[in-house]
Amino acid sequence: MGIRVKILGSNSAAPAHRRHHTSQLVNIEGQYYLVDCGEATQLQLKRYKIRAQRIKTIFISHLHGDHYLGLMGLLSTMHLMGRKTPLTLYGPKGLSEIITLQLKYSETVFNYPLTFHEVDATTSKVIHEDDFVTVTSIPLNHRIPCSGFLFEEKKKKRRVVRASLPEDISIRNIVRLKNGEDAIDEDGNVIFQNNLVTKPPRKSFSYAFCSDTKYDESIVPIIKDVDMLYHEATFLDEHMDRASNTYHSTAKEAATIALKANAGRLLLGHFSVRYKELEPIAEEARTVFPESHLALEGEDFILEE
Amino acid sequence: MGIRVKILGSNSAAPAHRRHHTSQLVNIEGQYYLVDCGEATQLQLKRYKIRAQRIKTIFISHLHGDHYLGLMGLLSTMHLMGRKTPLTLYGPKGLSEIITLQLKYSETVFNYPLTFHEVDATTSKVIHEDDFVTVTSIPLNHRIPCSGFLFEEKKKKRRVVRASLPEDISIRNIVRLKNGEDAIDEDGNVIFQNNLVTKPPRKSFSYAFCSDTKYDESIVPIIKDVDMLYHEATFLDEHMDRASNTYHSTAKEAATIALKANAGRLLLGHFSVRYKELEPIAEEARTVFPESHLALEGEDFILEE
Repeated sequence: MGIRVKILGSNSAAPAHRRHHTSQLVNIEGQYYLVDCGEATQLQLKRYKIRAQRIKTIFISHLHGDHYLGLMGLLSTMHLMGRKTPLTLYGPKGLSEIITLQLKYSETVFNYPLTFHEVDATTSKVIHEDDFVTVTSIPLNHRIPCSGFLFEEKKKKRRVVRASLPEDISIRNIVRLKNGEDAIDEDGNVIFQNNLVTKPPRKSFSYAFCSDTKYDESIVPIIKDVDMLYHEATFLDEHMDRASNTYHSTAKEAATIALKANAGRLLLGHFSVRYKELEPIAEEARTVFPESHLALEGEDFILEE
Repeated sequence: MGIRVKILGSNSAAPAHRRHHTSQLVNIEGQYYLVDCGEATQLQLKRYKIRAQRIKTIFISHLHGDHYLGLMGLLSTMHLMGRKTPLTLYGPKGLSEIITLQLKYSETVFNYPLTFHEVDATTSKVIHEDDFVTVTSIPLNHRIPCSGFLFEEKKKKRRVVRASLPEDISIRNIVRLKNGEDAIDEDGNVIFQNNLVTKPPRKSFSYAFCSDTKYDESIVPIIKDVDMLYHEATFLDEHMDRASNTYHSTAKEAATIALKANAGRLLLGHFSVRYKELEPIAEEARTVFPESHLALEGEDFILEE
């Protein structure tokens, strides 16, 4: 598998038309990363039968309520349900202070280690790295400090063709083959030449999450050639003035960014409460960038070979 | 009408079994009072088609997350949806600081006046009074400062028997009759004697909300003869030790308080996540206090003549 993005919510401002606030589960090789956490995200996780305790890392883009007001409840439930596994949290300045103040008045100390890393919303840099992914911040152009996040899978290992190998091949040789080396016997003689028993690694995918932002081409070099881009599309182009005044984007603007970035696919979200029907947003985006999709809650968007 | 209590949520700690965190709408003569505001309360209000903007007063019992984490989202939505009507908020020390900090980082100033009154959780006194109701705080015995709230309807006016009066009776005389005075002509002569054309006022009802608390009889004098009592019943009696250790009550303890207070009716809530089936909680309470009911979300409990 590669990257699977599950949309938990994609409405802006106030919940409406049965749509929830922004949150997404990014599943990379079975590792759970949560991106934004609007109110009731823990209920959405339950609704889609996703085990919250599997989440190890949370990224919060900014401190408008529709992007983080579900965080305190989620962290509390993790604690109450007996979590011991460490959790890493990335977010803007202020988030740690808000959590700490709430814990102070509830006289609560979490049972699990929670590590907070402040994200500088003015610059693009690697903020997180583990065995599976590198995450780079994307400075967005919003009313308050706001970061997007670029997830890039680590380079994958070569794929061993099991049928070309004896059943008793050693684990050590499997590891060598995956790393691009030949298999050898105890004396160091080559027994299987790498390129004859392995296939090239699968593609490493990338996913960029950009919400909230006004149209700003300065993010294009950061997300260039991304396989999948989530870009907010709060308004239709007919409300371009409203979009600009509130530091949001239109569907056409989101599509223009996807086009300029040479993205593989575009997910549209952060829909304004004013739109009950969302199809016009997708249609508008497709006039510029055909591979545009509505990030409707409950939907899965998958990057895999 | 009298007092109508709509249960929006009554689960403790973490949401579970499709049950939401604590919140109730207390409707007194069409005036909306919200009591506690767990996460997703604004979604529950939508679900039950209750117009959030009609809420003028909010009472928060304490700062455990399951009782207030939906407040910031509700206040924000009121703002985003154009509210201008003032809102009055009662809650413990710290609540104002938490709201102020979140507003600071979201760089938001609400469009409507929000007045916060700190409730002293150590004493019982009148904290709110308007044309319809007097609200008195009830000091509860919990891990952190926690207040219950006693709603007492104001004394009602006499009920005019329209059939006993001519159609052209003046508004001024109707007002006199409602206030217990006789109707008079322009010269001050009695034209209708009050007790012949009016009935006594309807009963003024009372409702007490007590969550969260361990068993504590010191609240009995405050809620004596209350028409309806909501008392937390987090556990069954078989988990009495757990109840005591966590400063919560069992169903039997809640019923004992209702009995000692001579309550008219008991609503049980704040159910532990461990119970999927709730009927045993009601059954246990009824062994002590027959008029015990589960405060299930979506249910209405009505006090009227």
